[in-house]
Amino acid sequence: MLHFENDYMEGAHPLILERLAATNMQQCVGYGCDEVCESARRKILSACGLTDGEVHFLVGGTQTNATVIRALLRPYEGVIAADTGHIALHEAGAIEAGGHKVLTIPHHDGKLSAEAVDAYIEAFRRDEAWDHMVWPGMVYISQPTEYGTIYSLAELEALSEVCRKWEIPLFADGARLGYGLMAEGSDVTLKDLARLCDVFYIGGTKVGAMFGEAVVIPRKGFIPHFFTTIKQSGALLAKGRMLGVQFDVLFTDDLYFRIARHAIEQAARLREALVAKGFQTYYSSPTNQVFFVLDDEQLQRMRRVTSFSEWEHLDDGRTVVRLATSWATRPEDVERLIAEL
Amino acid sequence: MLHFENDYMEGAHPLILERLAATNMQQCVGYGCDEVCESARRKILSACGLTDGEVHFLVGGTQTNATVIRALLRPYEGVIAADTGHIALHEAGAIEAGGHKVLTIPHHDGKLSAEAVDAYIEAFRRDEAWDHMVWPGMVYISQPTEYGTIYSLAELEALSEVCRKWEIPLFADGARLGYGLMAEGSDVTLKDLARLCDVFYIGGTKVGAMFGEAVVIPRKGFIPHFFTTIKQSGALLAKGRMLGVQFDVLFTDDLYFRIARHAIEQAARLREALVAKGFQTYYSSPTNQVFFVLDDEQLQRMRRVTSFSEWEHLDDGRTVVRLATSWATRPEDVERLIAEL
Amino acid sequence: MLHFENDYMEGAHPLILERLAATNMQQCVGYGCDEVCESARRKILSACGLTDGEVHFLVGGTQTNATVIRALLRPYEGVIAADTGHIALHEAGAIEAGGHKVLTIPHHDGKLSAEAVDAYIEAFRRDEAWDHMVWPGMVYISQPTEYGTIYSLAELEALSEVCRKWEIPLFADGARLGYGLMAEGSDVTLKDLARLCDVFYIGGTKVGAMFGEAVVIPRKGFIPHFFTTIKQSGALLAKGRMLGVQFDVLFTDDLYFRIARHAIEQAARLREALVAKGFQTYYSSPTNQVFFVLDDEQLQRMRRVTSFSEWEHLDDGRTVVRLATSWATRPEDVERLIAEL
Amino acid sequence: MLHFENDYMEGAHPLILERLAATNMQQCVGYGCDEVCESARRKILSACGLTDGEVHFLVGGTQTNATVIRALLRPYEGVIAADTGHIALHEAGAIEAGGHKVLTIPHHDGKLSAEAVDAYIEAFRRDEAWDHMVWPGMVYISQPTEYGTIYSLAELEALSEVCRKWEIPLFADGARLGYGLMAEGSDVTLKDLARLCDVFYIGGTKVGAMFGEAVVIPRKGFIPHFFTTIKQSGALLAKGRMLGVQFDVLFTDDLYFRIARHAIEQAARLREALVAKGFQTYYSSPTNQVFFVLDDEQLQRMRRVTSFSEWEHLDDGRTVVRLATSWATRPEDVERLIAEL
Repeated sequence: MLHFENDYMEGAHPLILERLAATNMQQCVGYGCDEVCESARRKILSACGLTDGEVHFLVGGTQTNATVIRALLRPYEGVIAADTGHIALHEAGAIEAGGHKVLTIPHHDGKLSAEAVDAYIEAFRRDEAWDHMVWPGMVYISQPTEYGTIYSLAELEALSEVCRKWEIPLFADGARLGYGLMAEGSDVTLKDLARLCDVFYIGGTKVGAMFGEAVVIPRKGFIPHFFTTIKQSGALLAKGRMLGVQFDVLFTDDLYFRIARHAIEQAARLREALVAKGFQTYYSSPTNQVFFVLDDEQLQRMRRVTSFSEWEHLDDGRTVVRLATSWATRPEDVERLIAEL
Repeated sequence: MLHFENDYMEGAHPLILERLAATNMQQCVGYGCDEVCESARRKILSACGLTDGEVHFLVGGTQTNATVIRALLRPYEGVIAADTGHIALHEAGAIEAGGHKVLTIPHHDGKLSAEAVDAYIEAFRRDEAWDHMVWPGMVYISQPTEYGTIYSLAELEALSEVCRKWEIPLFADGARLGYGLMAEGSDVTLKDLARLCDVFYIGGTKVGAMFGEAVVIPRKGFIPHFFTTIKQSGALLAKGRMLGVQFDVLFTDDLYFRIARHAIEQAARLREALVAKGFQTYYSSPTNQVFFVLDDEQLQRMRRVTSFSEWEHLDDGRTVVRLATSWATRPEDVERLIAEL
Repeated sequence: MLHFENDYMEGAHPLILERLAATNMQQCVGYGCDEVCESARRKILSACGLTDGEVHFLVGGTQTNATVIRALLRPYEGVIAADTGHIALHEAGAIEAGGHKVLTIPHHDGKLSAEAVDAYIEAFRRDEAWDHMVWPGMVYISQPTEYGTIYSLAELEALSEVCRKWEIPLFADGARLGYGLMAEGSDVTLKDLARLCDVFYIGGTKVGAMFGEAVVIPRKGFIPHFFTTIKQSGALLAKGRMLGVQFDVLFTDDLYFRIARHAIEQAARLREALVAKGFQTYYSSPTNQVFFVLDDEQLQRMRRVTSFSEWEHLDDGRTVVRLATSWATRPEDVERLIAEL
Repeated sequence: MLHFENDYMEGAHPLILERLAATNMQQCVGYGCDEVCESARRKILSACGLTDGEVHFLVGGTQTNATVIRALLRPYEGVIAADTGHIALHEAGAIEAGGHKVLTIPHHDGKLSAEAVDAYIEAFRRDEAWDHMVWPGMVYISQPTEYGTIYSLAELEALSEVCRKWEIPLFADGARLGYGLMAEGSDVTLKDLARLCDVFYIGGTKVGAMFGEAVVIPRKGFIPHFFTTIKQSGALLAKGRMLGVQFDVLFTDDLYFRIARHAIEQAARLREALVAKGFQTYYSSPTNQVFFVLDDEQLQRMRRVTSFSEWEHLDDGRTVVRLATSWATRPEDVERLIAEL
């Protein structure tokens, strides 16, 4: 049985394990104030083209979204997201538990368009009853999105411009950021994100790490006392060095980018081969997630060969499924999957 | 320079690292639903003498306290704690961020007495204005406490009885539980905790793991939908297997208890030697934390030899300091510290 | 200039003012524990056909919704509402501020159908990722709705049945309940609401009172410690007698129903006359709110004669407007409005 | 039976009732945007010596405290209060429900001293673990206090200076402000409060109104979007005019001050007479609350004559009781009480 159901089925990249073992008995201070965390921060800032931004290491994606959003918003504010956004659907109400409404806008290909955000805010400000409603206080996007699609540089620039026009921060959830940056056709770099977003994070959990998300705040001090808010949110790891080591390894010799590229290549081979065999793609994802619409016969066939996610059941009886590759996907498994379908 | 400032300065026990490496490329499902997590759960339940309780793996202590307390309380309720309790002081307001008041009672040796809790609740229920006040909805204790002291079995039984009398749950924070169970003079076992508490956790972060706390709920279903509340609290690890592996190793061949015992022995040697040298102990801690009152000369001397925590500045100018040992403390470091002081 | 913009433009029914004046200098205990509150509670329970339910008096609608919903839900739960529901749109995020998500379902005529709720919950329970999502923990409806429409007895019974099937409470926002009960064609009584809902409230603010909403809990003890949750929510009036007096007067000699009927009659006359003059109604509201679609010329004309609410701007350039009558609407004002349009 | 148990036993001052009746059928816009609210705001600002501050009308004290504090604090912050503060004890956890910790400091005579606040913050900032703790984000005081005592101008100036030194706002709960301003020996004016506090409120509920608290924000815009936060907190009265009328009457011809003075005079007579009769006062309250320590015989005697509050049971068996006068206290009742004791 093969496994293509998600991108967090293996442990950590071997180089990370190696470095964890090598540094295991070194004694260091806690909470991310140690030297390896400092080193990782410097490497990340450098990759982002920043000289004095902040980097904070958190453990997981839902936690990071909830902590950043709670830190950015005032009580009367909510966060704009696509209706397919992870925070809108699959975080068990973490944003609302922090006191804030998720203001959803219909997605297109899993994305928010600058025009839609602008129109939403403009309509809100014109509404007679606006002051009885939740003020749009920030914009949340995922890069890549939950549908595996990516924002182009032009799209990001337009979103950033709308946010600056309305004076609200733009926050990008980069749980799978590596796969977005390395996607076929992507024209967005870390430096672009650092220039266009007010906060974003570089996902480790799904891109080579055991766990860990690196939050980048390009303007130092933009979120006051963020360390304490992280602690309050239960998101501060006592042995912060574990996060430092992982990101330090990932940002040494471009490891993060190289392993992300590997996943993209496997996904591309898979996509092409399945299309050639007559399977129909669903979303046009250039990242490590591949979506197909299967009829019943195809679904049964796939079930015999590999695990995968059933994404959506269409009205015509067909099923949208997701296959995911990762840094750990073995080319021979891709071959086998192609051969057996 | 030696380091005795806390018990989370090293990485993980070597057997854990070994097992992580050995299982690293195995593919498994996420969120703690894999087989190694199941195995770890079975071992923990067995160590607790439970046949059908629940075990949930979370990442850190503040997170665990906040998640459990939020899951147990209704809006009108608060949590009783010693005024020295971790949740009362050093969790950055995590309990209040979840909507609940920490109702503090003066400690004795870092502990809550059953009598004090009983008297508090009785006074509350008699108060004319009780329904304008926060209802005491549960009791939080730390075993061992923040002062390194431990509850005796009789003390725990009395607390448990008071909680059952008033029909509120008893929750024990076991961030350093191993050191409590193995302390000189301790007469409390995991089975006792499972019998006397409604929820408690077995700390991994400070006792051999990289990170991780195992929440034990002796009565299955006592907290409905706890999985979702964990997710909402940002406390659900995607690669849950990392927690499973760690606890599975810790609960194989009594590793958890053996390494905790090691830390206790090192602390005992340190305590005895320092007392012999005229240093004055402060709290009577039989666990891995050792507290001394130092005059200025002693403080300076200690600063030259080792790192430690400055705990409190007394009015007479002296300083209470804490030295901590752990599963990783090297006997030769204890020797050196003793020799140089 | 006439005023038909909402149903809370005047003070209180003269009989209420009279009784407030008559009892003004009587000394009584606070917080709704006085005798007039008790009398009002008995009258309301009797009108609901209840022998031992509870009645709590709160001040306003948003406050009542937020307090009841917070008291009913556990952390992992959200509240199902129509996407046009007051809690979803016009309460400035009060439900989210209490930690809970509003789970919206598309409305039909401002209403939730039992089928839609059932389908929503069924789909939720079948979803692979349900335990990463907000559990539907209760259903919120407005009777009458924000569009002035009403649930029929059959619709309410079906909703109640679905809620009981899934074991979640049904809560009805009755901010304009009088107008719903007295609407042309309504077949729902207070006794029906008491039988079919787990909590509902009888709105005073918009139906004759200065302010005040009477929350009815048909099963005593269904919400434990609700008094304290009301206090915590800032919803407990110190001089609770003010609420008691108002509801006691409203529930004496059927005043509540008679004045609601008056508003319905004025709205009916207005609706018929405007239709006769060629104005086109929008929603089919049989209550005190009347909705019309106006072209630009009609809009200008109406602006010269009366105030009203602009509800929605249609794509074809026309405007949906709302005219509201109330217990205080003077028949001569209705005449004048009809004459001048 | 006489009644001296609190200061909210009667309805509203007759002039208020009269004005409510006179304006009852006038039609006006809701939510406090009407002309009478504007008039009341102007009068209050003028009494405070402010030209462009803000005034917001809320309904009750707990609600006002919770709303203002939530609006002022960021997630990592808490509010400093005396351990006897209303928000610390008798608001059922309303502040914590809003996500924030109440940081208590021991009171002296119910008050916070500037020195104690300064020392608290200084110790906090020096604490090794400060960033794992709740940041002191504002100071809450009550004028007069829960013990009937008052801050002198010098004390207020010192507190204000400490707050400005540490750059945190000072907020005064004025639920009984009239009685504080008119107390024997008070040297504090509304203008002083407006100069020294960042937010404070003028209590109506206990000083002549049916209900209502007027929040004064001396610097316009100091709390952005406060209207929406009020709405979200369930604290926005639909018929806001009811609050406007009450405060407009109270701030016409100094009514607020005159009726407060009346209560002070009654309390003074009562205090002097009881002292003359050998009763022992407890706190030195110059306001409308009078505290005595009664032995058992005195307690029984008082119970036969009047209602009152039992404040505290002393260890020596005696009881501290509170008698309260108000704007509505009849001199003949004071005479009778004195005569019968």
